[in-house]
Amino acid sequence: MLDKVDLSSLQDKVLNDDMRSLIERFKTVREVTEALCEPLEVEDLNLQAVAETSPAKWHLAHTSWFFETFILKSFEENFVPFNPQFEYLFNSYYNAIGEQFLRPNRHLLSRPTVSEIYDYRKNVTERIVTLIEKQSQLNKIAPLVTLGINHEQQHQELLLTDIKYNLYQNPLLPVYLPLSETLDGKQSVKSSPKNSINWVSFDESLVEIGKELGDGVNGEFGFDNESPKHQCFVAAFEISERLITNGEYLEFIEAGGYDEPKYWLSDGWAKKTDAAWQAPLYWYQKDGYWYQYSLTGNCKLDPNEPVSHISYYEADAFATWAGARLPTEQEWELVAKGQPVSGNLLASKNYRPTPTAEQKMVKQLYGDLWEWTSSSYSPYPGYSPLAGAVGEYNGKFMANQYVLRGGSCVTSDDHIRATYRNFFYPEARWQFSGLRLARSL
Amino acid sequence: MLDKVDLSSLQDKVLNDDMRSLIERFKTVREVTEALCEPLEVEDLNLQAVAETSPAKWHLAHTSWFFETFILKSFEENFVPFNPQFEYLFNSYYNAIGEQFLRPNRHLLSRPTVSEIYDYRKNVTERIVTLIEKQSQLNKIAPLVTLGINHEQQHQELLLTDIKYNLYQNPLLPVYLPLSETLDGKQSVKSSPKNSINWVSFDESLVEIGKELGDGVNGEFGFDNESPKHQCFVAAFEISERLITNGEYLEFIEAGGYDEPKYWLSDGWAKKTDAAWQAPLYWYQKDGYWYQYSLTGNCKLDPNEPVSHISYYEADAFATWAGARLPTEQEWELVAKGQPVSGNLLASKNYRPTPTAEQKMVKQLYGDLWEWTSSSYSPYPGYSPLAGAVGEYNGKFMANQYVLRGGSCVTSDDHIRATYRNFFYPEARWQFSGLRLARSL
Amino acid sequence: MLDKVDLSSLQDKVLNDDMRSLIERFKTVREVTEALCEPLEVEDLNLQAVAETSPAKWHLAHTSWFFETFILKSFEENFVPFNPQFEYLFNSYYNAIGEQFLRPNRHLLSRPTVSEIYDYRKNVTERIVTLIEKQSQLNKIAPLVTLGINHEQQHQELLLTDIKYNLYQNPLLPVYLPLSETLDGKQSVKSSPKNSINWVSFDESLVEIGKELGDGVNGEFGFDNESPKHQCFVAAFEISERLITNGEYLEFIEAGGYDEPKYWLSDGWAKKTDAAWQAPLYWYQKDGYWYQYSLTGNCKLDPNEPVSHISYYEADAFATWAGARLPTEQEWELVAKGQPVSGNLLASKNYRPTPTAEQKMVKQLYGDLWEWTSSSYSPYPGYSPLAGAVGEYNGKFMANQYVLRGGSCVTSDDHIRATYRNFFYPEARWQFSGLRLARSL
Amino acid sequence: MLDKVDLSSLQDKVLNDDMRSLIERFKTVREVTEALCEPLEVEDLNLQAVAETSPAKWHLAHTSWFFETFILKSFEENFVPFNPQFEYLFNSYYNAIGEQFLRPNRHLLSRPTVSEIYDYRKNVTERIVTLIEKQSQLNKIAPLVTLGINHEQQHQELLLTDIKYNLYQNPLLPVYLPLSETLDGKQSVKSSPKNSINWVSFDESLVEIGKELGDGVNGEFGFDNESPKHQCFVAAFEISERLITNGEYLEFIEAGGYDEPKYWLSDGWAKKTDAAWQAPLYWYQKDGYWYQYSLTGNCKLDPNEPVSHISYYEADAFATWAGARLPTEQEWELVAKGQPVSGNLLASKNYRPTPTAEQKMVKQLYGDLWEWTSSSYSPYPGYSPLAGAVGEYNGKFMANQYVLRGGSCVTSDDHIRATYRNFFYPEARWQFSGLRLARSL
Repeated sequence: MLDKVDLSSLQDKVLNDDMRSLIERFKTVREVTEALCEPLEVEDLNLQAVAETSPAKWHLAHTSWFFETFILKSFEENFVPFNPQFEYLFNSYYNAIGEQFLRPNRHLLSRPTVSEIYDYRKNVTERIVTLIEKQSQLNKIAPLVTLGINHEQQHQELLLTDIKYNLYQNPLLPVYLPLSETLDGKQSVKSSPKNSINWVSFDESLVEIGKELGDGVNGEFGFDNESPKHQCFVAAFEISERLITNGEYLEFIEAGGYDEPKYWLSDGWAKKTDAAWQAPLYWYQKDGYWYQYSLTGNCKLDPNEPVSHISYYEADAFATWAGARLPTEQEWELVAKGQPVSGNLLASKNYRPTPTAEQKMVKQLYGDLWEWTSSSYSPYPGYSPLAGAVGEYNGKFMANQYVLRGGSCVTSDDHIRATYRNFFYPEARWQFSGLRLARSL
Repeated sequence: MLDKVDLSSLQDKVLNDDMRSLIERFKTVREVTEALCEPLEVEDLNLQAVAETSPAKWHLAHTSWFFETFILKSFEENFVPFNPQFEYLFNSYYNAIGEQFLRPNRHLLSRPTVSEIYDYRKNVTERIVTLIEKQSQLNKIAPLVTLGINHEQQHQELLLTDIKYNLYQNPLLPVYLPLSETLDGKQSVKSSPKNSINWVSFDESLVEIGKELGDGVNGEFGFDNESPKHQCFVAAFEISERLITNGEYLEFIEAGGYDEPKYWLSDGWAKKTDAAWQAPLYWYQKDGYWYQYSLTGNCKLDPNEPVSHISYYEADAFATWAGARLPTEQEWELVAKGQPVSGNLLASKNYRPTPTAEQKMVKQLYGDLWEWTSSSYSPYPGYSPLAGAVGEYNGKFMANQYVLRGGSCVTSDDHIRATYRNFFYPEARWQFSGLRLARSL
Repeated sequence: MLDKVDLSSLQDKVLNDDMRSLIERFKTVREVTEALCEPLEVEDLNLQAVAETSPAKWHLAHTSWFFETFILKSFEENFVPFNPQFEYLFNSYYNAIGEQFLRPNRHLLSRPTVSEIYDYRKNVTERIVTLIEKQSQLNKIAPLVTLGINHEQQHQELLLTDIKYNLYQNPLLPVYLPLSETLDGKQSVKSSPKNSINWVSFDESLVEIGKELGDGVNGEFGFDNESPKHQCFVAAFEISERLITNGEYLEFIEAGGYDEPKYWLSDGWAKKTDAAWQAPLYWYQKDGYWYQYSLTGNCKLDPNEPVSHISYYEADAFATWAGARLPTEQEWELVAKGQPVSGNLLASKNYRPTPTAEQKMVKQLYGDLWEWTSSSYSPYPGYSPLAGAVGEYNGKFMANQYVLRGGSCVTSDDHIRATYRNFFYPEARWQFSGLRLARSL
Repeated sequence: MLDKVDLSSLQDKVLNDDMRSLIERFKTVREVTEALCEPLEVEDLNLQAVAETSPAKWHLAHTSWFFETFILKSFEENFVPFNPQFEYLFNSYYNAIGEQFLRPNRHLLSRPTVSEIYDYRKNVTERIVTLIEKQSQLNKIAPLVTLGINHEQQHQELLLTDIKYNLYQNPLLPVYLPLSETLDGKQSVKSSPKNSINWVSFDESLVEIGKELGDGVNGEFGFDNESPKHQCFVAAFEISERLITNGEYLEFIEAGGYDEPKYWLSDGWAKKTDAAWQAPLYWYQKDGYWYQYSLTGNCKLDPNEPVSHISYYEADAFATWAGARLPTEQEWELVAKGQPVSGNLLASKNYRPTPTAEQKMVKQLYGDLWEWTSSSYSPYPGYSPLAGAVGEYNGKFMANQYVLRGGSCVTSDDHIRATYRNFFYPEARWQFSGLRLARSL
């Protein structure tokens, strides 16, 4: 529609404003990524402990590759790649673009060096700005830039998630940022006293789930997996008003939760046994106390902090033990719809979940931790992926994964919304994942 | 409720009739299992090619173990086990009963011999009949016998499914039963000419899915995973009137379907590549022709026979290639509800799916092949597993598997219904699995 | 040379006698193999717990395949294979003959049945006898029949070794032959009292090791790996007069031998840790006592019985702990040369090693247990394998294995000699292997 | 003996000279290691593609750890470790010292940073010099410093060997040092014309192999595995006068050498098949030509350069194909004994093997490439390891490895000698390994 010749000057005006705003948002996201790397040493930027946790350097490069490949390559006149081999080196999983360098081997790319990657970033950032400023084909470019911004925000979160896991492999337990330099540390947060769980109930209803596909030019931006908006029948249920805490999870552990198959899904029990899980990732015991590693260092386990870095299996086992279940993603979305998007997100600079005070309302929906739902990640009725290579963004992963909702303490504040669907395999623990309970009525 | 003292003599009468019927059904199912083993050699009965495909001998023993452990042990006076070590050897996965002999090693149990297992079967069968005839606690025993009958029917199907896979490992390609001895072979079935797919459409609706929990005494028998009956909103869709055929699937192969990632789920592509799949299980090429191994021997591929022994990933890739998708289990159930339960089931003694003629109605819902749905196997709203060890029957498997519907050519005729939910991992191919297409409207 | 026309009638006479003797030996070896299977059930004959332990049925077939492939196929007029697919199914590792059915899958060959394999054996036995009786090309056939006899004797030993391991996987711990039916059991052997180790010393010398290549027609039969006879300089050493006992090995265990890396080769320590070895194979503890599984059943550990079923790594670690080392194969052969070939071999029908009385001489060289030497299995100077496919018999295995000497309680009495070189990987434990100590002077 | 009080002033004088010389050699070896790292980026120094190829940073640290742990810790007054955690982080395999950080995870140690490791090196170097200058207990310290120098020379070679492998994983194929900066490149070496192999023969003899144990104070330094000197009978043989070339190896490849099992050891064939070897490591084909990656970059295969980076299995297969065999280590040592130690070693700064001209004498014994021998790495008669933790240096590896002789183009010139025994597993290819042929006469 925007291609049509009858676009008025008014629309040009709007586009001009949008363009300035777009450039602003684009430059901000690029700067934030680099700021997140500032506390790290060159040596840290290449770390990759397992295939899933890419080196920070690779995130720096791949997010640039995304803009170069999907925008510059198609829209820049006389396009010349910054380095023709980068297309292969920094492609994540887009088969339509070509082969990819093996994911588990990303740490073997000592070259290009960190310095060369920063040159690459600078080059791509400048060329994208130039391209937007030309205003040619902006109706096609703007949606892709918006997608690229959202993509880079996702990788900002992954960068922090991955570096946490990678630094943790080192017996020296390096600290990403000392607690004293975080907002949380400066405010000397007092942990609220432990409280019991309050429940909030909802009647059965026919609700609208998801949102219409939008790309930031035609409609508000959303990922294709959130669309189309569709009706769902949701039976009556109640939901816990806050996230489950370390203290509550410790009760589960001390009650023998990890040794009793009856609480566990069969696959979960097998995984737990095979991986010898006895507690969440990043928990360890020393001299009779529990400690927890975080981006701001080690400290004794705070019983009021939400329990984090648990797998779907552990979340489900805890819920079973507690006589409840995980919410479905529809239940979660129904609850979240009426709430403002705010919470302990990236801008809070806590880099860890924080306790919440008792209140008779549903809290912590946004931020703190991604919340496991019992919903398998599958297409909404009538779903179809975007056209072209970016169609591989979401759709092809719709099997064997579970939906998480709500964002975490390392999610960008303007990146999350009620309809947002994150997804991971049920055994994943390196994500900032937690849980909330639900019960059928 | 049945425990109460005010049970009238009328109810005794009913119980008497039910008892006779129960014994009849019990004895039949025990005989059928043994009849299915008749064409096999002693050596065949111990085969186990992979962990999933248990030896036929183990099925013979385990189905007896089920009756002994869940019924005789609890209800027989002065219970003495047939052999105290069998509890360990023939427990499948019931953690509440105790440890289990390692599944992949079942083929290493040369002892007890086949002959000893038949003695075990005879002993258990007789003791169960005696126990029923005593009529004591029948309201507790009858549901468990009914569960055991259904359990044994499931293992009859697995026995045939497993023996097909196990015999196939032998380059001599042994035949379970010569085609000439099957009903199909005797009737010299003519394959109907290939036809295009007809679609049947359904409007959006709020439907009831599942059935109330019943154990055969209180209500018609059903597995706990089919309950509770609950409402679902189903959007408008259309469904293919029959199963996809070998001929249609061959078109997908010849169009390069196995070499083109864009049709595949990401996990599917990884599995296909790793396992080097190029066609369904049991297909092989020789001298330029495609052949297919079946329980009745090898033969050239029949293009009109429903395509069988495909994984969820292949079913999904085919559907994507065909511009359609797999139905959800709710869509499937909605369609099946109005139809009589009949088809190419075990009593047909074909042991393979058969072609169907063109008609403007939905066919082959029951029998021929289990149909992959796009629904992840998860609990219905309000689901809770049975109490006690039998609670491990279904619930703990509700992760990472997909629902299949409708039964197959090796499913007992009185075992299948519209609400029946079978489930397997998406990479499973040794089951009698096929597919039907759907499209959102 | 034997082909020449000038062979005298005297030589014919000799050949005639040799022929009768050859037929006799051939028929005996065939009968012994079948006699060894008599105590086993049909179900037992298909067992294969790991790739190394072939089913007894496979041994029955493969030893027949050897005669059919290397003799009948070349020398029988109008040769027709018993079953053309057997060439593929029962080839062990002869690449020159063609592809082989996968070794770990041998247990999947339920067909041909045991009964069919016995038919195969009978057929091959008769045809070989007929072929020998024809006396045509006997100078070529006799060496191959001799090789086949020795080959079958090796498989008799493997058959017992493998069935021991395979039956042991079953929690019912089936007995091959009750102790009461063995010679040992009938004689109610009294275990001699435990004694200290005596040492016998040898001066440095230049010795002849190995034997000239002989095939039974031209020279006494020996395997190619024993040739050529060659000179070796052996420095002064002493050797223990008997095998190490269970009691001595238990001291090593109780002294923490399995927990102390300093006694172990690096690869040995890694293997021990990975496999969680804490004692020899077939040892297990119950109620504070050590037990040992054997072909004649379980019994409490006899401290005077030679320790058996240990790996090279364990033998080496024990020797290091004891302040000694394993002998080289040259040292062993030097010691054995002057001794008569007798001991606790197969004809004793003990199926397990037995204690020996104290004497100031080297004992137990033959029989009881194969003795690990410190010699890597490698070609003698000037070694060359036999021509043709039988050249794959020994030569291609001359890497990564260690030489064992002296035969065991399941080795045929007429199969062993001072120059005989057996070989296994250093982690192998399922063989009847033990150890004797040596020390440099 | 050196502890005794009657040591004359003359001996003091000698020690003084020795001390200066020792300090000189120590400082040189420390400088050389750092010089070898100069061409590398910080990012390169952390690379580790497989467990065997440690990061250069780790080599820098571990060689310092060796001096700190085995010398400073025992002899420095008021010893305080540079960093108490380094003992764990940089221990390679010395169980007597304590647990080791997992070898495959060395690349995960982003901290300590490169800069911190250089501080560590400087600190250790200075403290060792100070300690030597104190002259206290020098008779104990000097042998350990000498061992440490030799140890660091071994790691210099490994550092180059590992970095070659690690850089090769990067599709950008980074160059360690441009050819133009090497001596070889500057001299513009001309490849000599290809010639046939000449053979040099040796009669049978009783030879002395190995050397007496010496530690640099009491006798010339040698590793314990070279001792004791002992007699060996070596039968008559001939040996090829030079190393096998790329051109000759290419003939083997083109003759189908990699597809014909009859040339291969059984384990070699299995490994080749499993790893899909079709040529030596670092060879690759492009546009119909063969190329070879080296530390000085890629270039077309030089047919006259010695073939390098082959496994024992490939060396053995080539020899079999060529109608010859590999020499034993005794044969090699006998030949090398009379020759001066000179050749294309580290000081030549070629970092790759170079062609040699035709001559009727045995050449290339030292330098160019480590030569596979047919000798399994095992203890010499009467061998015993050093006392204490350094006893783990060599002895515990005496199983499953093969001896290589002669040093390579990255071996220090003063590190190699006729009796030197290097050892690697037969599948290792990342070492600078080549082959020479031998034949029994």
